[in-house]
Amino acid sequence: MKVEGKHFRTIWVNEDGWSVDLIDQRWLPHEFRVETVRTVAGIATAICDMWVRGAPLIGVAAAYGVAMRMREDPCDAALDAVWEELHATRPTAINLRWALDEMRNLLRPLPPGERAAAAYRRAAEIADEDVELNRSIGRHGLNIIRRIARGKKPGEPVNILTHCNAGWLATVDYGTATAPIYLAVEEGIPVHVYVDETRPRNQGAHLTAWEMAGHGVPHTLIVDNAGGHLMQRGKVDMVIVGTDRTTAQGDVCNKIGTYLKALAAHDNGVPFYVALPSPTIDWTVRDGVKEIPIEERSEDEVSLVWGRDTEGRIRQVRIAPQTTPAGNPAFDVTPARLVTGLITERGVTEASAEGLAKLFPERARTAA
Amino acid sequence: MKVEGKHFRTIWVNEDGWSVDLIDQRWLPHEFRVETVRTVAGIATAICDMWVRGAPLIGVAAAYGVAMRMREDPCDAALDAVWEELHATRPTAINLRWALDEMRNLLRPLPPGERAAAAYRRAAEIADEDVELNRSIGRHGLNIIRRIARGKKPGEPVNILTHCNAGWLATVDYGTATAPIYLAVEEGIPVHVYVDETRPRNQGAHLTAWEMAGHGVPHTLIVDNAGGHLMQRGKVDMVIVGTDRTTAQGDVCNKIGTYLKALAAHDNGVPFYVALPSPTIDWTVRDGVKEIPIEERSEDEVSLVWGRDTEGRIRQVRIAPQTTPAGNPAFDVTPARLVTGLITERGVTEASAEGLAKLFPERARTAA
Repeated sequence: MKVEGKHFRTIWVNEDGWSVDLIDQRWLPHEFRVETVRTVAGIATAICDMWVRGAPLIGVAAAYGVAMRMREDPCDAALDAVWEELHATRPTAINLRWALDEMRNLLRPLPPGERAAAAYRRAAEIADEDVELNRSIGRHGLNIIRRIARGKKPGEPVNILTHCNAGWLATVDYGTATAPIYLAVEEGIPVHVYVDETRPRNQGAHLTAWEMAGHGVPHTLIVDNAGGHLMQRGKVDMVIVGTDRTTAQGDVCNKIGTYLKALAAHDNGVPFYVALPSPTIDWTVRDGVKEIPIEERSEDEVSLVWGRDTEGRIRQVRIAPQTTPAGNPAFDVTPARLVTGLITERGVTEASAEGLAKLFPERARTAA
Repeated sequence: MKVEGKHFRTIWVNEDGWSVDLIDQRWLPHEFRVETVRTVAGIATAICDMWVRGAPLIGVAAAYGVAMRMREDPCDAALDAVWEELHATRPTAINLRWALDEMRNLLRPLPPGERAAAAYRRAAEIADEDVELNRSIGRHGLNIIRRIARGKKPGEPVNILTHCNAGWLATVDYGTATAPIYLAVEEGIPVHVYVDETRPRNQGAHLTAWEMAGHGVPHTLIVDNAGGHLMQRGKVDMVIVGTDRTTAQGDVCNKIGTYLKALAAHDNGVPFYVALPSPTIDWTVRDGVKEIPIEERSEDEVSLVWGRDTEGRIRQVRIAPQTTPAGNPAFDVTPARLVTGLITERGVTEASAEGLAKLFPERARTAA
């Protein structure tokens, strides 16, 4: 999407045909930095140190990492080694593993001399497929926004609340939860986005607010505490969030705090939608509340806050006494009963085993 | 309550019999500063610049301000002037006005020569009455904690979640929501408190966490997003919060985000209690969601975060792009249907017009 009027993806191959540029997201929203990466080690660092984040984007970065190694050394041993090296950067990221398997399975049967070119082609395809997936989610979500817009007075915006960053910065372009918003803007539908700051890591304040500003989408930053009140006073027309994992019965595991927004939406009759590419459906799990283990992350994410000081330096400040213990569950589970609909690349469905099975019969059959 | 092993109130008269010491809360949790105030101007600054906050404490500080002026000049004109001067410091604080009226009504009929001594006496009484009020709330709330503790295995703590700071720092001592907790600790009941950081101003991280640490109460700081998940996983036995204003039918206006916790408690069968001194009941309002106007505060409270940097300096950092607009509703309303009980100085009652009328028949009659 746009940054200061110019269109960007989060990652792309340079004109030399092999080095890769990517947005180093660690400095957002304060600095917009694009880094050129020329080595597998550079890709590993970018993934491991979170220059790039978001499942689809990590997968694409890893695919380009494999391509770089094939350009240097296309032998089988190098292919296995790069798989291991990149997989170790974030071993729990399912999409990372998927992309590495995809590349190895494609390249292994090829003569070494053809591997580098084939790898770059496939990495570019994976990137394009992600963009197309998100555009499909966007088109289906756009129908919902259109419907709400028709009930508004002329010029009155559709007010959308979102949590965390399921935006283009977490993907190659468009994002998942934001794709319907960007397509609505392209179509000229007036929208206004309430951006949850999303403690503890503030991805809403750092990334979503920056995305919205860059693309010219009217928005208001709010604390995570505010959404319930806004819904109670009729200021939110719909909620759209992303998800890290959706179960076969439609329970939604997403950034901590999502469940509270779903409760408030339900209590106030505000539609609550979850945008998801189908690869994030976990067909092996049904009851998300009972079955999904929730990652407990570092206490420092709660006690220390990043920002820019009055002298322009980016630094951390501690908000609690030095000795205060903190708890930091990273995700929560929103039960399907609180979800109005799941927006997938194949269409919108109710959050239920039946709804998902209707859209994805081939997957639901395998899982059952 | 205790700070580093020594008992403190938030405000007290020194041995000289007239100057006042108070905790300058602006530096908490990073520095514990006690300031001596010797002038009305000093009291006005302490209220206006929020060295002290919380309705009861502001009232007591103002009462001592009146006493100081009477010591310098006990004439009628001085009495009227000090009322005006102190009232202007926070004109919307109902308790401030109440304390000033109380002092003026008491002093006006007295001969000027007796006014200073009477003023100091009454100010001390107001402070003691606040402590006694909170101890009464504490005793009634303690019964609830005892009941929950009886259902626990030996040594297993009662897990209590609280939002914002309705602690002793907001009163003269004990606090409202924290009074049952402190009394439970005095009685040797094991408790553990989940402290919501309470964005945007972080009163939980700054004040409640500091209070708990000082008094030796086991606690864990969490982001406001985490409470729903913890309740879903059975980690919270009860919620206790304070309130700025409770309506005649039991709707609770409190710090933004309280409503979301009440929804989560309701969804998970966790009892949700509100501790309140009866003067905070607004008998003129019934439907809090429809009738209570919500104060919209400065955007900077959302965009800028206070803390201590790695070099030990207390400073602000900006968490969002400079140009990001922010919304900052300061309070929300929790409908009575989500409240398990109101803990008042006269006992615990259901959050309803009938429940409140039973406990406070004289007030309910006047209001009807």
